[in-house]
Amino acid sequence: MTAPAKRPGRRPGTADTRGEILAAARSEFASRGYEKATMRGIARAAGVDAALVHHYFGSKEQVFLAALDFPINPATVVEIVSGDPSDVGVRLARYVVGLWEVPEARERLLAVVRTVASNEEMAALVRGFARPRLVVPLAERVGGADAEVRVEMALAQIIGLAMARYVIRMEPVASVGSEELIGLLGPALQRLLGAQE
Amino acid sequence: MTAPAKRPGRRPGTADTRGEILAAARSEFASRGYEKATMRGIARAAGVDAALVHHYFGSKEQVFLAALDFPINPATVVEIVSGDPSDVGVRLARYVVGLWEVPEARERLLAVVRTVASNEEMAALVRGFARPRLVVPLAERVGGADAEVRVEMALAQIIGLAMARYVIRMEPVASVGSEELIGLLGPALQRLLGAQE
Repeated sequence: MTAPAKRPGRRPGTADTRGEILAAARSEFASRGYEKATMRGIARAAGVDAALVHHYFGSKEQVFLAALDFPINPATVVEIVSGDPSDVGVRLARYVVGLWEVPEARERLLAVVRTVASNEEMAALVRGFARPRLVVPLAERVGGADAEVRVEMALAQIIGLAMARYVIRMEPVASVGSEELIGLLGPALQRLLGAQE
Repeated sequence: MTAPAKRPGRRPGTADTRGEILAAARSEFASRGYEKATMRGIARAAGVDAALVHHYFGSKEQVFLAALDFPINPATVVEIVSGDPSDVGVRLARYVVGLWEVPEARERLLAVVRTVASNEEMAALVRGFARPRLVVPLAERVGGADAEVRVEMALAQIIGLAMARYVIRMEPVASVGSEELIGLLGPALQRLLGAQE
């Protein structure tokens, strides 16, 4: 730590300013929840100007994702689900399994899953974020009755499969090839997210 | 603790014998894994006769389930899946959601999920148990290509949904009625476990 013991009010960016903003963001998101936390509040807690937080991260969502070190961008998922409904399941399965194949992304995902499972504060954070930024926009694209529950079941299928494959490392799902996994996960997601009969 | 500091070899059952057997069992399952642990080894570690372990628990599987305080009996799940394949999904969904409705069973299930997510030793235990006692027998009933992977995806859907509903408490899945949930989970499980085209 190079920061002085007593902060001299708003400061320009320094080498560890980004890290200090993220630490302040984690604290703000934890104490206020995603919806109530503000860029201004995060800036204040970090002792920097709000413009600097915007400069580093662009939006509250991006601060949140960086603070959690979360490798999935909800906007990408929404974009994937917004395409042709006839093969939305396979497209999403391909994206998700592809992400798991990258060890660094996988480790960061699993860290979030592990923390959420054991830490109520983290569960509250993810809950407060995932609904407005992921579940509601996805459900709007998916449409039909129970769209939000079906979206959450699809997310549950994905998270549960990641746990089975990478946390519990249950065979054979732990070592099945990614194309085979996409071939099984795709139709399961399609049933939940595709056009409903 | 009423046990003497040095155990006098094999003892008859006492009021806390059951608890001592379970503690010994947790230690044996953790160090040897489910497959290699034996009733005899558990009895030895507990300082009791193997017949007493049989008397209390009947089988290694029952010792394991009691040691983990796990409220699901795999034999019941296998029985459910062994019935008419045309509505296996709804039957399993009804059983699982019914179990979640019982607060005590739910808490014990979630304790296992939380521990597995954060503890590699526990993950290894569940891995070593679930494959021979749950995945393989279920896959035999389900049949078809990729039966084991499909069974594991069904289990992943169930565990993921329990996390979304009870750990993250994501709305609307956290408060949707159990009949509605069965109506959505049933077809998802049916697709994975029912007769394959």
